[in-house]
Amino acid sequence: MADTDWPGCARSLKGVILDLCGVLYDAGEGDGVAISGSIEAVKKLKASDLQLRFCTNETQAARGAFVAKLHRLGFDMSVSEVFPPAPAAIAVLKERGLRPHLLVYDGLLPEFDGVDKNDPNCVVIGDAAEKFSYQNLNEAFRVLINLDKPVLFSLGQGRYYNEQDGLKLDVGVYMKALEYACDVKAEVIGKPSPTFFQSVLNDMGLQPHEVLMIGDDLVNDVGGAQHCGMKGVQVRTGKFRPSDERHPTVTADGTVDNLAQAVDMILNQRR
Amino acid sequence: MADTDWPGCARSLKGVILDLCGVLYDAGEGDGVAISGSIEAVKKLKASDLQLRFCTNETQAARGAFVAKLHRLGFDMSVSEVFPPAPAAIAVLKERGLRPHLLVYDGLLPEFDGVDKNDPNCVVIGDAAEKFSYQNLNEAFRVLINLDKPVLFSLGQGRYYNEQDGLKLDVGVYMKALEYACDVKAEVIGKPSPTFFQSVLNDMGLQPHEVLMIGDDLVNDVGGAQHCGMKGVQVRTGKFRPSDERHPTVTADGTVDNLAQAVDMILNQRR
Repeated sequence: MADTDWPGCARSLKGVILDLCGVLYDAGEGDGVAISGSIEAVKKLKASDLQLRFCTNETQAARGAFVAKLHRLGFDMSVSEVFPPAPAAIAVLKERGLRPHLLVYDGLLPEFDGVDKNDPNCVVIGDAAEKFSYQNLNEAFRVLINLDKPVLFSLGQGRYYNEQDGLKLDVGVYMKALEYACDVKAEVIGKPSPTFFQSVLNDMGLQPHEVLMIGDDLVNDVGGAQHCGMKGVQVRTGKFRPSDERHPTVTADGTVDNLAQAVDMILNQRR
Repeated sequence: MADTDWPGCARSLKGVILDLCGVLYDAGEGDGVAISGSIEAVKKLKASDLQLRFCTNETQAARGAFVAKLHRLGFDMSVSEVFPPAPAAIAVLKERGLRPHLLVYDGLLPEFDGVDKNDPNCVVIGDAAEKFSYQNLNEAFRVLINLDKPVLFSLGQGRYYNEQDGLKLDVGVYMKALEYACDVKAEVIGKPSPTFFQSVLNDMGLQPHEVLMIGDDLVNDVGGAQHCGMKGVQVRTGKFRPSDERHPTVTADGTVDNLAQAVDMILNQRR
C-alpha cells in the first residue's frame, strides 16, 4: 500500500509545483536575493524524473521580464514552466469575449498588448501599489457600475505583503473595496483558485494526487493545493509565520525549513 | 386609539429629525442649491410645537463651517441642532481613552483639534476622496496592523455618492478595504448606527416612537430610524431612486415628493 503521509508520499509522486517568491528567492532591492540552497534544489528536481512547474501570484511584471530576473538570480527555468495569473486571465478574457479595463502595475501592461481594451465590459485588477490612487480606483468603479452585469477579475486576493520598507497593501484589499462599491463578487485568478491550479495540472498531464505543491503561503499555496487534491508542504521561509503551524483551518502535509530540505527529503524517499 | 400609520401618526409626534443633503439642499458647485420649498418648510417646523434636529453623515467640513454654509443657503438652524458623525466620534474616543490616527478630509481636521493624536491606538476614517491615496491608506493600515487589538472607526458606511462630475467612491469602500486587510470589523459612527440616532433622541429628551425621521437615503435614514423604533419617511429628492419603493428589506412609513410636502402633511394632521 502506498504511503500517503509526508514524506512517504514522495515515493508515488510524478510532479512538483513550486511557489517562487519566499521559496526560491526573497523580494528586495533590485532583483532580490536567492534563498540559501534553493538554486541547487531546483537543479536537483530538474535532474530527477519528476515533472516541475512554477506557480506564482506575481503580477508586477510580464512573464518574460519576470523569468529573466530569475535567470539573473541563478535559477534554471523556461518561460513555459512558469504560471502567473496574467496569462490565465487573458485566456479567460478571450474565451468569454471580454474587453478589460486594467488597473495593474505598468510592468504587467505588455502582457495584455494583444488584448482588445476598447469599450471595456469588465475590470481586471492586480497588485498596483501606488497606482491604487483614489482617481484610478474611482475610474475602475465607474466602468463597473455602468455595466449591466459588472464583471470584476482580481489577480490574487492577498491582504498584504512585506517589502524592505514595511508591510504593503495587496490586491485583495482593493478587490474587497470594489466588491462592496458595486455589490458584486470578484472572480479570483491565481492561487488559491482551483481553476488556476488545474491549468498547471493540465499542462503537466497529471492527476492531483500525483503532485506536490511547495510554498510559503499556508492558505494560498498549501490550502489551495490541498483543496484540489494535491499534497501541500510549507517552507519556513518567506512569509511563513510560526502561528501557521497552529492555523485553525489549514494543516500542511509537512513543514520544512526550506526548499533544499524539502527536495532532499523527496529525493531520498525515491531512491 | 392613536393612529400609528403615516400621516395619521403625525398627531402624536413630539419631534422631527431631518437629514440635510438631498432633503434641504443638493450638493454642487460652491455651497450647492436649496431644494424648492425646503427653506420655508424648515421655518414652519421651527414655528411649530415640534422639536427639530438635523442628523447628517456629512464629514467634509467641521460643524461650524458646515452650518455657516447652510445659513448662506437661507436655512435657519444653530450648530447645537446639527448632529454629524465627527463630534459623536470624538465623544467615543474620549470615553474610551483612544488616540486616533485620522484619514479624513482636511476640512474636518479642525474638529479634532482638542483630541490627543500622539502614539495612535485606533484609526478613524471619513470620506477623504483624493486623500485616499495608496500611501495614506497603507499608513492607516500599518497603524492598525501594529496594534494588539486593532480598532477602526468609520464615519458612515456609504458606497458612493453623486457629484457634478459623476459618481464618487465613499468611505464605506475604504472601510471594507481596511476590514479585510486587518481582519477586523469597523465600528460605524453616523447613520444608520443606532448609537448615533440615540444620541440625537437623548438630546431631544424624547422616546423613539415620538419622533419621525425624514431623509432621502432609504437604508441609512429611513431603515436606520425604523430600526431604533422611530417612523421613517422618504423624500423623492436627493439620492432617491424609484427602485427604493420596491426595496427588498426596507419599506418607508411614507414616501413624499419633497420636504415641503412632508411638513404640510404633518402640520395639517396636527391642526
